[in-house]
Amino acid sequence: MKITLPVIAINFKTYSESVGKKGLKIAKAAEEISNDTGICIIIAPQHTDIQLIASQVEVPVFAQHIDPFTAGSHTGYILPEAVAEAGAVGTLINHSEHRLILADIDEAIRRAKEAKLKTIACSNNPEVSASICALSPDFCAYEPPDLIGTGISVSTAKPEVVTKAVELMQKINPRVIPLCGAGISTGEDVTAAIKLNTRGVLLASGVVKAKDPKAVLQEMAEAAQKTL
Amino acid sequence: MKITLPVIAINFKTYSESVGKKGLKIAKAAEEISNDTGICIIIAPQHTDIQLIASQVEVPVFAQHIDPFTAGSHTGYILPEAVAEAGAVGTLINHSEHRLILADIDEAIRRAKEAKLKTIACSNNPEVSASICALSPDFCAYEPPDLIGTGISVSTAKPEVVTKAVELMQKINPRVIPLCGAGISTGEDVTAAIKLNTRGVLLASGVVKAKDPKAVLQEMAEAAQKTL
Amino acid sequence: MKITLPVIAINFKTYSESVGKKGLKIAKAAEEISNDTGICIIIAPQHTDIQLIASQVEVPVFAQHIDPFTAGSHTGYILPEAVAEAGAVGTLINHSEHRLILADIDEAIRRAKEAKLKTIACSNNPEVSASICALSPDFCAYEPPDLIGTGISVSTAKPEVVTKAVELMQKINPRVIPLCGAGISTGEDVTAAIKLNTRGVLLASGVVKAKDPKAVLQEMAEAAQKTL
Amino acid sequence: MKITLPVIAINFKTYSESVGKKGLKIAKAAEEISNDTGICIIIAPQHTDIQLIASQVEVPVFAQHIDPFTAGSHTGYILPEAVAEAGAVGTLINHSEHRLILADIDEAIRRAKEAKLKTIACSNNPEVSASICALSPDFCAYEPPDLIGTGISVSTAKPEVVTKAVELMQKINPRVIPLCGAGISTGEDVTAAIKLNTRGVLLASGVVKAKDPKAVLQEMAEAAQKTL
Repeated sequence: MKITLPVIAINFKTYSESVGKKGLKIAKAAEEISNDTGICIIIAPQHTDIQLIASQVEVPVFAQHIDPFTAGSHTGYILPEAVAEAGAVGTLINHSEHRLILADIDEAIRRAKEAKLKTIACSNNPEVSASICALSPDFCAYEPPDLIGTGISVSTAKPEVVTKAVELMQKINPRVIPLCGAGISTGEDVTAAIKLNTRGVLLASGVVKAKDPKAVLQEMAEAAQKTL
Repeated sequence: MKITLPVIAINFKTYSESVGKKGLKIAKAAEEISNDTGICIIIAPQHTDIQLIASQVEVPVFAQHIDPFTAGSHTGYILPEAVAEAGAVGTLINHSEHRLILADIDEAIRRAKEAKLKTIACSNNPEVSASICALSPDFCAYEPPDLIGTGISVSTAKPEVVTKAVELMQKINPRVIPLCGAGISTGEDVTAAIKLNTRGVLLASGVVKAKDPKAVLQEMAEAAQKTL
Repeated sequence: MKITLPVIAINFKTYSESVGKKGLKIAKAAEEISNDTGICIIIAPQHTDIQLIASQVEVPVFAQHIDPFTAGSHTGYILPEAVAEAGAVGTLINHSEHRLILADIDEAIRRAKEAKLKTIACSNNPEVSASICALSPDFCAYEPPDLIGTGISVSTAKPEVVTKAVELMQKINPRVIPLCGAGISTGEDVTAAIKLNTRGVLLASGVVKAKDPKAVLQEMAEAAQKTL
Repeated sequence: MKITLPVIAINFKTYSESVGKKGLKIAKAAEEISNDTGICIIIAPQHTDIQLIASQVEVPVFAQHIDPFTAGSHTGYILPEAVAEAGAVGTLINHSEHRLILADIDEAIRRAKEAKLKTIACSNNPEVSASICALSPDFCAYEPPDLIGTGISVSTAKPEVVTKAVELMQKINPRVIPLCGAGISTGEDVTAAIKLNTRGVLLASGVVKAKDPKAVLQEMAEAAQKTL
């Protein structure tokens, strides 16, 4: 399950529109569009849906979160190896809605590597983006919290902050692949994000809560394709 | 998926011995023994394994935890409805390793009911057991943290505290079904627990980490059967 | 420093209007009014101001929070004994803005007793009020979170919920003294609260952020006096 | 209250040996030794003792923790401005016993600057040290958690890890002043720490729980003096 750039990553959150079979349908649309356009589309369903989706769809499936634990007495927490065995190939870490203690971000990234999971670590401003890059995740997704879920795209509303975040990230650790997110809902938003030197986007409601998720995803993938 | 009393509830935790296919094997043993003895055996696998196990095994599957949320922007958290759609019929709440803010225990129990999930709320001493019973979970499992995972059974090491906990629970809310746990690893421990007026046990390592989980579970179910 | 009923408890929160010397001024107003009216006025300043205020003012000073710890390695946390040595005679526990894990509420109440601190445990609905009363704090202050800071008083906007909360509390543990709070900003609100069978109020902005805190407090104390 | 290098910072934690008047006594010893040796000794008492100590002793007083809040509705939390008004000139942030969410470390450092508080941000390994330095605290104190409180000094037991941490910190942000801590209990430990290119130490039990805190502090200050 190779991840190619640019990437479009869809966070299913705990939206009712993406639970179980509804999520599987969005995942299948992602698979079809990815096959058509050659653009890599990552999907991040709820933990309870990873196994269902990963067993039926050929796109990279990410967990939305892992806990920085090894196997043991951690009732109700998310073991990296369990996520991997269910079929995930990566995970979000420190999403704005699920922030972690710094030492746990560090440990979660380490544990993810041990479980052979790719990591998209999320950040809320340029300084925190730099800070996270010192911990060497595979990707860092900068998402200003005030734009998440608004439909006002970070890449058009705050282009200079995205640029600053990408520069700081690259300076600290050029091996971390920069993404951005928050408010991404059109192909233009994707184009703008990539023009600002990110290598893709992380989004959620823009696709999951769209009237026609497949159409929006198609538009985004085509926009990403044109940047190649 | 009817839950009958007494009940034996197996928490899979995040033990390596219970992830994925290994957990499925324990679940199948539970199903077979439950069918043979007529004793209800609940299993609580990791979130990522609920769907796999619930689709293949006819015993009540519980989540190890739910978050007190409704559908929405809660990346990486456990939505009660998602757990239910994956096939769970109940959930642990406030396990000693995953304790919740009081207002969240209250809300999680309410949300579980809305998602048609039975609840086993866990407590760490008689006073907290009483406190939790005021929130009307279906079950309250009293587990002294210092005995969890020790193999020293609460029902034999602290019988008078179990008795006190059960009395306090019943006084506050007689509709809540009392369980106990911590250190339960033999049929005798199960017998002792039921003689102390609990209606069953919650355990983990005693079965999951046993050399022969099926044999231990068989012994426990037979012990429970004899109390009928 | 005897606490008499009914009581008016003023939470200083971290309002800029109540830090340091400004808080001392409000505390002195409370002392004067309490002396004039005979009504007990508790004040809960920030941790850093307890010593300053308790050494200069003769009203019961409460902490806004304690941590459920014994002396030891707990950098930055609030040790009950330290609060007591600074001059506090009690503490809020589980305020809506500082909610605790259930087992920690239980332990914090126990630790407070050991440090000879009175406890006002806060709750957000009637069920949680009942639950907290099972843990035997000295007071339970029911405060619906949606009214906190609004100026719309719980005692006039939700009288039937206050009544229900008080009934549940008394049923579970009649030794716990019921208070209510949220939106309390006038003498009438205090009168209404006491008529609903509470023994006083917990409030914050209604006094601290008032144009004339002393005048509001005077009005409230006189209203409380008339209920005697 | 100028902070000069090298620095010896004493964290009082919530040890019973440092509450109230006992803490004041240690603070006075620190003042005397600092005056004698010219070595800067920072003390970090509990929040409730800041005012008492800062008003009587002429050494830099730090808080053990601040919360990343502005004035408002944050009952029981530690407002940077309140700490400053009580007399503190700085604060620890993210101590191993009080770890923060990454975004909150970033915000706490920002808020501290606004309140004119110097910051000692703590880290648990070289990577996290680097990560924290991207957020520009004044100091970064690297403390391996497994040595905290042991009396086995980081500077003698793990010299190569201290060196690595200092190098990573300097590479990310050369303006951050490196400290180390954990197990520091003798003058030799202080000497070793400074030879490893740190500019001082953060310690707690080594002084606070010593039979003769003043004698130990004297030894440490003299050791620091010799490195000049």
